[in-house]
Amino acid sequence: MDKVVLALDLGGTNARFAAVLPDGSILTRMRVRTPKAGDSDQILKMIVESFQTIRREVGKSYEAVAIAAAVPATISAADGVLAELPNLPALEGVDIGGYLCEGLGLKTYLENDATAATIGEHWMGASKGIDNVIGVTLGTGVGGGLIVNGLPLRGKDGTAGEIGHVCVEPEGHPCGCGSRGCVEQYASGTAIIRMAKEAGLKVASSWDVYQLAVNGDKKASEIFATMGKYLGIVFAGLVNVLNPEMFVIGGGVSGGWGLFIDGVENEVSERAFRDPASRAKIVRAALGEDAGILGAARVAFDLMA
Amino acid sequence: MDKVVLALDLGGTNARFAAVLPDGSILTRMRVRTPKAGDSDQILKMIVESFQTIRREVGKSYEAVAIAAAVPATISAADGVLAELPNLPALEGVDIGGYLCEGLGLKTYLENDATAATIGEHWMGASKGIDNVIGVTLGTGVGGGLIVNGLPLRGKDGTAGEIGHVCVEPEGHPCGCGSRGCVEQYASGTAIIRMAKEAGLKVASSWDVYQLAVNGDKKASEIFATMGKYLGIVFAGLVNVLNPEMFVIGGGVSGGWGLFIDGVENEVSERAFRDPASRAKIVRAALGEDAGILGAARVAFDLMA
Repeated sequence: MDKVVLALDLGGTNARFAAVLPDGSILTRMRVRTPKAGDSDQILKMIVESFQTIRREVGKSYEAVAIAAAVPATISAADGVLAELPNLPALEGVDIGGYLCEGLGLKTYLENDATAATIGEHWMGASKGIDNVIGVTLGTGVGGGLIVNGLPLRGKDGTAGEIGHVCVEPEGHPCGCGSRGCVEQYASGTAIIRMAKEAGLKVASSWDVYQLAVNGDKKASEIFATMGKYLGIVFAGLVNVLNPEMFVIGGGVSGGWGLFIDGVENEVSERAFRDPASRAKIVRAALGEDAGILGAARVAFDLMA
Repeated sequence: MDKVVLALDLGGTNARFAAVLPDGSILTRMRVRTPKAGDSDQILKMIVESFQTIRREVGKSYEAVAIAAAVPATISAADGVLAELPNLPALEGVDIGGYLCEGLGLKTYLENDATAATIGEHWMGASKGIDNVIGVTLGTGVGGGLIVNGLPLRGKDGTAGEIGHVCVEPEGHPCGCGSRGCVEQYASGTAIIRMAKEAGLKVASSWDVYQLAVNGDKKASEIFATMGKYLGIVFAGLVNVLNPEMFVIGGGVSGGWGLFIDGVENEVSERAFRDPASRAKIVRAALGEDAGILGAARVAFDLMA
């Protein structure tokens, strides 16, 4: 009987579930709203029930061998406890792996969501076969993940890859992380809305800002140019420090590609050393919303092996 | 007969030579002024002659098995050609390894000087036994090197580790690398002199600025505080991106430790994520001027093995 990993990509708004085969194909998908209200119990209950549904769907033909979850958090390498989740504060300090293992009777593997997306793209997407990759997820926040010499680089505590929290303006906009002027404050969906409002635009979403820019609004265009500039400043630094082969940009806000990518590339070519700058390709992610699920599943398959 | 590597640490001002044993002990040392004048021939001739002297000194009791050179440059992984050497522009595009191999009849191994210093400290100095280390050399410029999972991280083209060229002020002081506001423009010896002159101080060296600060000059103290702040901003970003265990700070300007380290630590604790920030120790290098020579020699021993 073929093995499957039951995988979750947990976002602040939606949770996506799927069953993933060892060859990276996806058997079944499900999307559930993430409970907004306060406590962790509701979220954990939703997750267990959804996994049970997925498991029933694939249960007759496949053997579920593990749970894998991409979470918007840093994960303590020591005890699997979640931290730094501004978009899901209810899960701060929760041992989600222990809970799911108990509730579902399967070993649970956790991965930071942006690192999972980077691993997913490396497995089945835009950076297949590329050994040194920096993944960036532009969504509500700015996430990041690293592949170095073909392997995920998680750092000593498993918290590495937080590219969104590199400072680009020492006295810049306060960031939820406690610092100021993080690139997340200029290149995330949240930042685009804030900058638009500061510019006097009446918008409710980054999509609105995108629409305005596409239709010729100069203020809206400048916001995406600013986003590109700051993202490019961070990329230039990463080019100089890590000499990667590729940047893979995903996440909902990467849909504005045509409005910000010139800014990114200009900064990299003006600021980074010549050879590593010409080495580093900057490409769009290929897997869309499946990247995190696939990456989490890949981690589980690798660690089980 | 015991093997030795003949090692060089080539600086813009001095070149240091030594014979290094496999256990990291240094047999003999020599220091020569680096020829200032224009062309590469003089520099290369000085290097070959100095190596010949060293070789004669150790030649009767030891077998010289390789040449190792730490150079203030990025080294093309493809062909060993040097690039990006603002302090020794005469060697731009020179295949120094090929030249030394021909002149001395020994296989030559090259390493970026700051990466060599990082490897040296990891082998025999402050970061012995630590697997995830960021080395920083504060000298005329700001150099950097990375140890990840116990191994040097050089990147796809061998140019990784250029921590001095991470931007900390998007519209900051122009940098020799072509960018603006690199941390090298705020934390190097050159930057300290520049900032002191901008503040109206009459100084000829960063040592002068240090003396003024130690003797209570507020402007001079503020310069070291500025240096600490910007270095700390870069360290905070590196903590978030790489989650290292240790920063090792060496180079002549690290002598001002007491004047800038509080600034570094404040920025890291204010800006970086809590767990990786408390993980990352910031310590002084232990090997002084031997770090580069030892690191280069270690690279040669490793690659020969």
